Amino acid sequence: MTIVIAPDSFKEALDATAAAQAIGRGVVAALPGTAVQQLPLSDGGEGFAAALRAARGGEWISAQVSGPLGEPVQARYAQLPGNVAAIEMAQAAGLPLLAPARRDPGHTSTYGVGELIRHALDGGATKLLLGLGGSATNDAGAGTLQALGVRWLDSAGQELPRGGAALSQLAHADLSGLDPRLAGIRLRVACDVTHPLTGPQGASTVFGPQKGASAEGVRELDAALGHFAAVLTAQGLPDVQQLPGSGAAGGLGYGLRAVLGAQLESGIDLVMDAAGLPQALTGASLVLTAEGRLDHQTLSGKVPLGVLRQAQRAGVPCIALGGVADPASRDALLMAGFAGVFPILPGPAPLADLLADTASNLEHTARSVVGVWAAGR
Amino acid sequence: MTIVIAPDSFKEALDATAAAQAIGRGVVAALPGTAVQQLPLSDGGEGFAAALRAARGGEWISAQVSGPLGEPVQARYAQLPGNVAAIEMAQAAGLPLLAPARRDPGHTSTYGVGELIRHALDGGATKLLLGLGGSATNDAGAGTLQALGVRWLDSAGQELPRGGAALSQLAHADLSGLDPRLAGIRLRVACDVTHPLTGPQGASTVFGPQKGASAEGVRELDAALGHFAAVLTAQGLPDVQQLPGSGAAGGLGYGLRAVLGAQLESGIDLVMDAAGLPQALTGASLVLTAEGRLDHQTLSGKVPLGVLRQAQRAGVPCIALGGVADPASRDALLMAGFAGVFPILPGPAPLADLLADTASNLEHTARSVVGVWAAGR
Repeated sequence: MTIVIAPDSFKEALDATAAAQAIGRGVVAALPGTAVQQLPLSDGGEGFAAALRAARGGEWISAQVSGPLGEPVQARYAQLPGNVAAIEMAQAAGLPLLAPARRDPGHTSTYGVGELIRHALDGGATKLLLGLGGSATNDAGAGTLQALGVRWLDSAGQELPRGGAALSQLAHADLSGLDPRLAGIRLRVACDVTHPLTGPQGASTVFGPQKGASAEGVRELDAALGHFAAVLTAQGLPDVQQLPGSGAAGGLGYGLRAVLGAQLESGIDLVMDAAGLPQALTGASLVLTAEGRLDHQTLSGKVPLGVLRQAQRAGVPCIALGGVADPASRDALLMAGFAGVFPILPGPAPLADLLADTASNLEHTARSVVGVWAAGR
Repeated sequence: MTIVIAPDSFKEALDATAAAQAIGRGVVAALPGTAVQQLPLSDGGEGFAAALRAARGGEWISAQVSGPLGEPVQARYAQLPGNVAAIEMAQAAGLPLLAPARRDPGHTSTYGVGELIRHALDGGATKLLLGLGGSATNDAGAGTLQALGVRWLDSAGQELPRGGAALSQLAHADLSGLDPRLAGIRLRVACDVTHPLTGPQGASTVFGPQKGASAEGVRELDAALGHFAAVLTAQGLPDVQQLPGSGAAGGLGYGLRAVLGAQLESGIDLVMDAAGLPQALTGASLVLTAEGRLDHQTLSGKVPLGVLRQAQRAGVPCIALGGVADPASRDALLMAGFAGVFPILPGPAPLADLLADTASNLEHTARSVVGVWAAGR
């Protein structure tokens, strides 16, 4: 008998690998001798590279690149077997890299993401898996492409400064210097495939404010990104401004797709596929998934729902554990098909204590849950 | 398939009947069409009569009797089929009847408990089930027996005032006026069968302080109860001062046993037996029990442990739900044999909200638990 453990991270408390280990301890305590397969997951944001490395093995590679405002940051990515590199854009251009007062989506750039890609190519990567999510940027991927050799020129033939605001001045894109190695690689992008580049559901409008944009800043950025896409389209690149996913990570989805021909995929689907979840579920008896907060967002494509859908395809019961389970969403979660939905809190306690005890509470909840499941057998 | 639901009350939040109903809703939501048998339980204290009435049917009877300090209180007891009366001593002499400033174990009396017994006899009861627990008194049952016709006399032949302190003046017990109907009835007493009447583990020492006794008051009461028992023993009544359970409800266990020949039984065992839990478990597939707080005390003879022991005898898996599950006791609870131990909190919230949401949280936890159990089948 095999029990599969496929959690997301518990954001403030525990990464996905540690969550899977805690759940695994509980499973083994309840059913000693059970085969446990731990597949920590991610939806493309934090934990993306770690999830793939946990499933496939490989090395962490560290590189110094440009941060969102150009300052040097130490970023890491995973080198997986088969010349595959798994890169999280947030390592070079993530919101946590900037103190709130320094957040400035008009000027932040994904330049460092391009540097990470170049670093991976230098290391021999021929397949790139890129996780979008948690960005501090709104530059439509212009910075990334610039680091890979593209020149963004204004009407005077001068290179634009970095950042999304300057894209309003784009007159011509010089693609001639694009790193030639990119032609031979496969680039898969894990993202939220919901938002287009521009418009009311676009990157600037929906995510600009949480990155520090004012209402006027949002309008300017939306217009700048629209102009950027119009120039590229006029130069013969694919018109993917309205493609869902183009708006991911401040429009990085757009730039990667339009200029590099990247495949934009649902983050959780890509991670589950790359991590081998469908294979792991074949013949499994039970799967446990988890995330920090089970609520209505869980049902719009987060890790536990992805795991549930795969489990349903495989005919395996799926149980969700959560740091919290929103009372308003419990019925909907059960209706979606989870066999059970379990918050892990043992009792009222200060939030800091609850966060500190996450691993222990996960372990004990898993132990009881598996004990009850086994009692039914 | 039958699922048995046998919870205690959630003290501040929900009585045992309401708890059983909430759990029942969750079970039916998870497994529509399942036969559910609800047996709200009690360990002899609060909810004792309600538990028996829920299991057996019957009527609530209301009577005005003397409260702990002689003031009139409206008390109720349950008249069950077969001329059985189920009486909680706390209805007439419980600690909640007195504001903290009025608590005074030297002077409080169980007189009203005797009035309730008389009322039940007047109504035709031939079997009495008496639940001890939550007492404001420390009178060794002297008040109860006085209401039933006994006269406690001092060396001058005068009747003693009510309350435990005055028992130090007892010279002679005049039992000639004892209600003759008591000879023909069966009196079963549900109590914590741990504490003797006197000594370091006795009623006064262990429970006196929480009823308002000072250190000196505790010593005086312990001596007074010892003197009381010595006089009765000298008059030829059974010497049961050291019998575990004699110390229950301020020594009421002693008085009922020594003078009326009552049977002192473990509260939870008596309730489970009287409620028909062993019969309900025969052929059942699963039993859910619950209480407000699952902790180390649960393992020293509270309702969930009693249910677990019966379930083990019947070979039925038993699951415990709790308003809280003490992290320090979770392992021990699982080691004791529960298939699972589940706190019901969905997330951090003010205690008042958690208490107010107890029924809903119980329902949802039961639904998930039974969903998981069914997934194992």
